[in-house]
Amino acid sequence: MAQKLWEKNVQVDKEVETFTVGKDREMDLYLAKYDVLGSMAHITMLESIGLLTKEELTALLAELKNIYAVADSGEFVIEEGVEDVHSQVELMLTRRLGDVGKKIHSGRSRNDQVLLDLKLYTRAQIQELVELTNGLFEVLISQSNRYQEVLMPGYTHLQVAMPSSFGLWFGAYAESLADDLQMMQAAYKVCNRNPLGSAAGYGSSFPLNRSMTTDLLGFDSMDYNVVYAQMGRGKMERTVAFAMAGIAASLSKLAFDACMFNSQNFGFIKLPDQFTTGSSIMPHKKNPDVFELTRAKCNKIQGLPQQITLICNNLPSGYFRDLQIIKEVFLPAFDELKDCLRMVTHMMREVKVNDHILDDDKYALLFSVEEVNRLVLEGVPFRDAYKRVGLEIEAGNFTPNKAVNHTHEGSIGNLCNDSISALMQNIIDGFSFNKVNEAEKKLLV
Amino acid sequence: MAQKLWEKNVQVDKEVETFTVGKDREMDLYLAKYDVLGSMAHITMLESIGLLTKEELTALLAELKNIYAVADSGEFVIEEGVEDVHSQVELMLTRRLGDVGKKIHSGRSRNDQVLLDLKLYTRAQIQELVELTNGLFEVLISQSNRYQEVLMPGYTHLQVAMPSSFGLWFGAYAESLADDLQMMQAAYKVCNRNPLGSAAGYGSSFPLNRSMTTDLLGFDSMDYNVVYAQMGRGKMERTVAFAMAGIAASLSKLAFDACMFNSQNFGFIKLPDQFTTGSSIMPHKKNPDVFELTRAKCNKIQGLPQQITLICNNLPSGYFRDLQIIKEVFLPAFDELKDCLRMVTHMMREVKVNDHILDDDKYALLFSVEEVNRLVLEGVPFRDAYKRVGLEIEAGNFTPNKAVNHTHEGSIGNLCNDSISALMQNIIDGFSFNKVNEAEKKLLV
Amino acid sequence: MAQKLWEKNVQVDKEVETFTVGKDREMDLYLAKYDVLGSMAHITMLESIGLLTKEELTALLAELKNIYAVADSGEFVIEEGVEDVHSQVELMLTRRLGDVGKKIHSGRSRNDQVLLDLKLYTRAQIQELVELTNGLFEVLISQSNRYQEVLMPGYTHLQVAMPSSFGLWFGAYAESLADDLQMMQAAYKVCNRNPLGSAAGYGSSFPLNRSMTTDLLGFDSMDYNVVYAQMGRGKMERTVAFAMAGIAASLSKLAFDACMFNSQNFGFIKLPDQFTTGSSIMPHKKNPDVFELTRAKCNKIQGLPQQITLICNNLPSGYFRDLQIIKEVFLPAFDELKDCLRMVTHMMREVKVNDHILDDDKYALLFSVEEVNRLVLEGVPFRDAYKRVGLEIEAGNFTPNKAVNHTHEGSIGNLCNDSISALMQNIIDGFSFNKVNEAEKKLLV
Amino acid sequence: MAQKLWEKNVQVDKEVETFTVGKDREMDLYLAKYDVLGSMAHITMLESIGLLTKEELTALLAELKNIYAVADSGEFVIEEGVEDVHSQVELMLTRRLGDVGKKIHSGRSRNDQVLLDLKLYTRAQIQELVELTNGLFEVLISQSNRYQEVLMPGYTHLQVAMPSSFGLWFGAYAESLADDLQMMQAAYKVCNRNPLGSAAGYGSSFPLNRSMTTDLLGFDSMDYNVVYAQMGRGKMERTVAFAMAGIAASLSKLAFDACMFNSQNFGFIKLPDQFTTGSSIMPHKKNPDVFELTRAKCNKIQGLPQQITLICNNLPSGYFRDLQIIKEVFLPAFDELKDCLRMVTHMMREVKVNDHILDDDKYALLFSVEEVNRLVLEGVPFRDAYKRVGLEIEAGNFTPNKAVNHTHEGSIGNLCNDSISALMQNIIDGFSFNKVNEAEKKLLV
Repeated sequence: MAQKLWEKNVQVDKEVETFTVGKDREMDLYLAKYDVLGSMAHITMLESIGLLTKEELTALLAELKNIYAVADSGEFVIEEGVEDVHSQVELMLTRRLGDVGKKIHSGRSRNDQVLLDLKLYTRAQIQELVELTNGLFEVLISQSNRYQEVLMPGYTHLQVAMPSSFGLWFGAYAESLADDLQMMQAAYKVCNRNPLGSAAGYGSSFPLNRSMTTDLLGFDSMDYNVVYAQMGRGKMERTVAFAMAGIAASLSKLAFDACMFNSQNFGFIKLPDQFTTGSSIMPHKKNPDVFELTRAKCNKIQGLPQQITLICNNLPSGYFRDLQIIKEVFLPAFDELKDCLRMVTHMMREVKVNDHILDDDKYALLFSVEEVNRLVLEGVPFRDAYKRVGLEIEAGNFTPNKAVNHTHEGSIGNLCNDSISALMQNIIDGFSFNKVNEAEKKLLV
Repeated sequence: MAQKLWEKNVQVDKEVETFTVGKDREMDLYLAKYDVLGSMAHITMLESIGLLTKEELTALLAELKNIYAVADSGEFVIEEGVEDVHSQVELMLTRRLGDVGKKIHSGRSRNDQVLLDLKLYTRAQIQELVELTNGLFEVLISQSNRYQEVLMPGYTHLQVAMPSSFGLWFGAYAESLADDLQMMQAAYKVCNRNPLGSAAGYGSSFPLNRSMTTDLLGFDSMDYNVVYAQMGRGKMERTVAFAMAGIAASLSKLAFDACMFNSQNFGFIKLPDQFTTGSSIMPHKKNPDVFELTRAKCNKIQGLPQQITLICNNLPSGYFRDLQIIKEVFLPAFDELKDCLRMVTHMMREVKVNDHILDDDKYALLFSVEEVNRLVLEGVPFRDAYKRVGLEIEAGNFTPNKAVNHTHEGSIGNLCNDSISALMQNIIDGFSFNKVNEAEKKLLV
Repeated sequence: MAQKLWEKNVQVDKEVETFTVGKDREMDLYLAKYDVLGSMAHITMLESIGLLTKEELTALLAELKNIYAVADSGEFVIEEGVEDVHSQVELMLTRRLGDVGKKIHSGRSRNDQVLLDLKLYTRAQIQELVELTNGLFEVLISQSNRYQEVLMPGYTHLQVAMPSSFGLWFGAYAESLADDLQMMQAAYKVCNRNPLGSAAGYGSSFPLNRSMTTDLLGFDSMDYNVVYAQMGRGKMERTVAFAMAGIAASLSKLAFDACMFNSQNFGFIKLPDQFTTGSSIMPHKKNPDVFELTRAKCNKIQGLPQQITLICNNLPSGYFRDLQIIKEVFLPAFDELKDCLRMVTHMMREVKVNDHILDDDKYALLFSVEEVNRLVLEGVPFRDAYKRVGLEIEAGNFTPNKAVNHTHEGSIGNLCNDSISALMQNIIDGFSFNKVNEAEKKLLV
Repeated sequence: MAQKLWEKNVQVDKEVETFTVGKDREMDLYLAKYDVLGSMAHITMLESIGLLTKEELTALLAELKNIYAVADSGEFVIEEGVEDVHSQVELMLTRRLGDVGKKIHSGRSRNDQVLLDLKLYTRAQIQELVELTNGLFEVLISQSNRYQEVLMPGYTHLQVAMPSSFGLWFGAYAESLADDLQMMQAAYKVCNRNPLGSAAGYGSSFPLNRSMTTDLLGFDSMDYNVVYAQMGRGKMERTVAFAMAGIAASLSKLAFDACMFNSQNFGFIKLPDQFTTGSSIMPHKKNPDVFELTRAKCNKIQGLPQQITLICNNLPSGYFRDLQIIKEVFLPAFDELKDCLRMVTHMMREVKVNDHILDDDKYALLFSVEEVNRLVLEGVPFRDAYKRVGLEIEAGNFTPNKAVNHTHEGSIGNLCNDSISALMQNIIDGFSFNKVNEAEKKLLV
């Protein structure tokens, strides 16, 4: 059995060991690739300050590249009896290279190693989220343009209120995603700073070159203060989780609309049969399960920041093992959100809209405000126009003119989708993904 | 490939299917035993109202007992291509008995079937939780009695305040658990009502005998109104989750104390070496990881009610697929809390207390209030006594008399552990576990 | 200016004072009556153990009764420069009685005094909540009986699914409230235990008689262990807040239904004009603001337990000033919930239901399951009946028989409202309000 | 009595009115200034599109400036019987100018008016928060520099671990605030977009010039899509609340450290007497109430995003009255957070640090890692050095060399405070406060 790195000459109670390892071996699989990448940067720096020889570095880098390839192909395994990814990588190295394999730990602690792994993993996940979000954005903009002319009722208080359109509806969610990525970018900046070199949270007496690893890994900067670098654990996750919750909130709301509009009581949209499910006892049902599950999954993600807060709040500064549990809720959340993004993109591409909604008489009153405004533009004072139309309606004499002529920016006739797309592009350009991708590629050459 | 029960002649999109099944196949393993048990009660009732023949009932019951045994031994498997536990059980029945296997679904919907499974599972889990909580309670009471005489500082504002004792400390957490079980009992009562017969949430035109299944399954009563029975989904989980959060809060607080008291700055308690871990870089550390992880896991559980609320809040009445996602966070939480209970019980049994804490001079001021009270009992007005002692302290002339003589109920000298135990016993007696266990045993004979 | 009780000879920084007093003077007004009541019980006990003379007791009781009357009439004022209710009461006593007024503090600390005030206040509020909840319950049961025959569509996935009725709809929420009071009763039991005598959380060297104050104040028992009594601060509030959140969840869901059913797309219910609002720009709107605000207020209350958890979680045992902030969110929540209960009771009494809903063709498919079941009762195997009806529907040949014949317990034809009422009454009988009211009355004679 | 703007000829039920107005009259006082400012921009635009004459505009602007001055001086009052700030402003205008006063509502709805008020208020509050945060930042950096040499123990698992310093401790929280403002800036950008012109959420048939009001009010851009502009209500508040929660989390953690370090068991810091409180029963106590209350208030603020989420989650698109309740929890939170920032700044400026902490023998083991590293730099393999020091410690033979020589970036000897300050300055420069302030000033000339 592989020994724990920190093991002393006392045997740890078996139950305690099982409890403390917990889901770590499962969770660490998410981090394997990034652990290797971080070690490559770290030892390159160690050689530069004389803590490794050139030969040692060469041998270690070659072997780490092999391990990276294993992890990249999804075949990395944490063996029975090995407690985490760091021990597994060390084990693989020492099997091939002997004791030199242990030297990758010089000048760092498991604390800054995990911090680094989490940040490298998270920034890669954010990159995927941004791409998927942008993909959905483009579908929404395209549907907004396509259905610009198709009117639907606009509600306030779920009361029929004013004319709206599918152009507005699709476009609104597109613009929502742009603001969501604004927050995500700030979270990305908080994440994309180098914690390596903070060791156990108090730095090291080795003459580490932290600028060098910052550059090698393509970080924007380092987390300078080593106590702060450690304090970032939990905070980074909470911050990114909130930005995820923002995207999730937009998807959840869109899903809510879709479920409601798909009801026979609205009949505004329809999903192709292969995207709905039936019922074991009601043969006519075409249920929008995909949207319901998206809503629920996204609402679960909206609880994530609070969950992380509960775990790491009211702890003094300095590392605590409590932080391990955050991995269980944080790491899998990316896959959940990416699944929802993919699924909603798919649905929004396929959804059919009803272009005869307003033929139904119950929507006639939508046009009352239009009528009030028409009178105002003819010179009738607003309050008088308002009362006149109101009385007509109460008396049952109101006949709507269903021609809608909204022209101002952001209205039915003038969606400003180009401006929204420009806003989105501008935000996406603010992420430094290229720099990061270049740096990682260079390390792996 | 086994067909979905509700499948029509349209092929569901593959990605949609993967997304909608989600973790259900994994989650449903928790429910297998209870799904079988529920079906046994249901078909016994169906026979009584003429919807099954006696022979069909006999054959089905025999086969269900076999499946129950498989599930009970942990070997129940949901096969590839089968979407959930209900379909798997039906598949196993029809393989052995032919079409009669499908008849177990008459007069119910998947909705009330899941509702029932969740309630049967939950009440069994609550029983385990109560037993484990009581086990910890007994260890705490026993340690409280054992260390009744060992004094420790009592803090307010984390300032040294007044004499306390390990008798009080252990006993306080015991009493806390009693109140936690008070809440758990109410949650149990909310859970232990029969939803079967509510079908899809609107009842059935079959002449079901719901009283009969209520009795067969040992429920306290039925959820009468079928719309309410369905509405209970999500509500039951949230309610039980809160009661779990109550226990978790007590454990988390105990763990916080233990981590702090184990610090070199306190040195009040010590864990045997085999229950602590070391550090990869600091050879002298003996870290209380078990308590830190207990704290974090319990804090995660404290977020559970809110997470469930987020998922099922602001939905109109009636079933939604959203509810499926609750299973993912709710079902595994029982194992997590049970693990924590077991681990804390283990630790509390083994922890060593320091019986010389108050020898340290920094605790001398603990006895200032004692001195004030002594003067008061001698006839000095309180405010004068208070000022006199305060001035002595500021002048550095205060010498404490370390004999503590607290005699009132619940104080250092009079812990009332018997009353606390009686309270606990009384609460435990209020659960109807026996009735439930008898009923389940009878069904399985 | 009245001096602070604990003031030493250093002047506290003015800004610090403002910050630390915070909203306490406002919050303490909620507690004034109960602070006086608690002091009456405390000094009665003090006399019995010789810490007050009979004459002192008589004088103090008489004056406290006067102050109680002031507080009861809503005219209690915390004067400028007095920091809280305890200081104000002492000030009023010493103005009338001289130094003897200060003796009410002997043998207790501000900590157990606040604990006691909070518990006395909370149990009185719970009593009001239970009465209001029961009032709403009775309206719902009465409307359920009244509209037993009026059918409405039952939805699953917001898809038209099966026949339901207003009898079921009103009755479901009634039964929901019964389960909510089940939880409230447990919370009440956690609350209704006497913390007095725990002093600063570590008891006292005075020979206090805690059983005596427990009886005088009508508590079920005492919080025995004094460390636990103190630990109950925050825990009691969180526990009661969860029970409040349960009621709030039921009201929120009812309000959600009502808002939706009031939409022109449903048209199931209607509120009299004087209970709706219009719009500044859309003259025809009749908005269900009352239900929207109820929903929002109740959703806010659903966040209360988590808010309290965030404030008091991860603190070691012993008092911290943090607990003061809980008052700000906890004390006003009772009024908010009571307002919602009153308003929903009012609305549910006045709401008009549409008794021709099912005339609309879009609801015809509701009866498909009825048809399947009819075939089954005629001997057609379920799956075959299911397929036959499904194919009829897809072919457009399905003609519903709209006669609904549901007879089992809890279904449209057999609402079991008597059983639900009996359940509710049984729960209400489990509260010990009479004992509490008697005790308080006796103290005030 | 002033009429409600939307009032029809039905009298609203009195209780309903009280319930629906709720705390709005109180909350709207926060918004008065901004409501006036928004109206000034709106009518300037109305004149440009011919909906007001030049004379009407001149008269209205003059009067609105008067009202602004009243609001700015804190003397704005919502009169008895007037339901909100919008009605009050209209009332004041019509009293002075007659019917022309009503024209300020042309081309907008109460919905976009409130949206605008909230955004103008929020961006002004964010500006204050940023200034106060920067003020605290500067104090922390200055204390970090001042106490760079003063060592303290660094903990992991609350176990004495490695040497740290007050330079690191103060500096860590400074850097934390920089990351917090990174998030705040993104939230600011989400906030600082113009919703005016979205009317009730579906735009208007008037030819509004939304670019013009965007410029007049100094917004970064408009919320283009009018449906999205409305959808921003709740979302903006939640987003800003999360950024506030970030600052609150840093303050809460700092306060936790301070409370702990102030305990006799640590004795690392000391607050001057005028910033602590005593105890009614323990004369020697010097309690850090300010930090406890800061912690609790900030933990309350950390619950704010979730509270807002609960209120506005799972609502379809379109306005609901639910959103009104968000004001009650959102608007006052700024004052609470600003108070905490001011108080912590004050405390951090005055706090005294103990510069002899490490004289205490219990901290000797801090230097074990230093010793291990020293051996490594001398050529001993890490694992061997680690074991050697570990064995020395277990045998009681370890004598620490207390000279600390950490030189890498961010470590005790090289705090990088200049880099941290540059980072902060760069973030602050990214806010567009100047542009906003100029625009507002110009409107008011």
